[in-house]
Amino acid sequence: MTPRSHFKIPKIPEMTVRRLSVYTRCLQQLEEDGVKTISSQELAERFNLNSAQVRKDLAYFGEFGVRGIGYYVAGLRGELQKILGLDREWPVALVGFGNLGSALFHYKGFARQGFRIAVIFDDDPDKSGKQVDGVPVLPLRDLPREAKARGLHIAIVAVPAESAPAVTEKLVAAGIKAILNFAPGRLRTPRDVRLKNVDLSIELESLSFYLAQGGR
Amino acid sequence: MTPRSHFKIPKIPEMTVRRLSVYTRCLQQLEEDGVKTISSQELAERFNLNSAQVRKDLAYFGEFGVRGIGYYVAGLRGELQKILGLDREWPVALVGFGNLGSALFHYKGFARQGFRIAVIFDDDPDKSGKQVDGVPVLPLRDLPREAKARGLHIAIVAVPAESAPAVTEKLVAAGIKAILNFAPGRLRTPRDVRLKNVDLSIELESLSFYLAQGGR
Repeated sequence: MTPRSHFKIPKIPEMTVRRLSVYTRCLQQLEEDGVKTISSQELAERFNLNSAQVRKDLAYFGEFGVRGIGYYVAGLRGELQKILGLDREWPVALVGFGNLGSALFHYKGFARQGFRIAVIFDDDPDKSGKQVDGVPVLPLRDLPREAKARGLHIAIVAVPAESAPAVTEKLVAAGIKAILNFAPGRLRTPRDVRLKNVDLSIELESLSFYLAQGGR
Repeated sequence: MTPRSHFKIPKIPEMTVRRLSVYTRCLQQLEEDGVKTISSQELAERFNLNSAQVRKDLAYFGEFGVRGIGYYVAGLRGELQKILGLDREWPVALVGFGNLGSALFHYKGFARQGFRIAVIFDDDPDKSGKQVDGVPVLPLRDLPREAKARGLHIAIVAVPAESAPAVTEKLVAAGIKAILNFAPGRLRTPRDVRLKNVDLSIELESLSFYLAQGGR
């Protein structure tokens, strides 16, 4: 195993990064099941992946397979977590504490991967100034101060579509470098700020595709 | 243009289906901007896609490009919508009306793509028996009757993890063929029921990847 995960990596396709997350979850399941080593073929068969794709995706980051053995499950899982930045805790700002914001705050999956919602911003006077499970809800004007004090780099935007552009501008001004946006519509960020739009209807479309192809 | 979208299609990679949704959105934007035709290169450049991938993905479904012209924007958008089953309205059942269920119910993106939440199921006596924006909230025992009466094929699961397996069994028994699941944990469905798990932390991981690679 000669991982190169700390080198500057050229351009990695977004889908490769997404698949690394999927591989990490598969490896976690294998670990829970007590599997120590696995070949790319077995991994692919067990989780319905493409083994050539697995090898190609991993090859961006190093040579993880061992001839005649395959991958060491725990070792590869650890390497992928490091590559994905999951070997540390990320404090996250949540902007918007309506139904969606509240659902995201209580979403267990974030904390499990090391994303800890450290502060919530909402200008609604009924909400700001309070605490939820020990996490402060603050007005948006406190963002610059809090971002600095808490070392925030990641924010989740869960505000209505019409507020999202102004919120995004404020996040960028406060030094946030990565934004996960749930608001519909186009947002603009400078080159050095990574924006990821979550479009939940895409998930439903992959289902209607199969229903439509099935002739329903 | 010789679309074959109504043929029985062999095995389409899941990522291809996902990208069809993305292409559809790009084409919608182009239409709004008054663009009539576009080449795969221009499309790729404009939306930061891979032009070879665009051609390969579309090739599963037919020959949509016209030599010397490229793609007709509106025509291709219409074909892709047909392929994705977006040329009709899908009544959808929403199970679970907590914070997440409520956020999903109010999520505008679903209706825009033709997914209409027609009925909500929740066994909480404070919720069931009521209506939300004209949509009935019913106890889960009404599911078989409602699924039949409303011709439901798609359900969204937004219940806590511990309730999700039992809910999924009931959906399958009621004849639901496609499930979008937001509950963490492994669910089992028979072969003919399509299950799609939404793991929101994967979206955050693609952000932490870039932050980690950037050396933060």
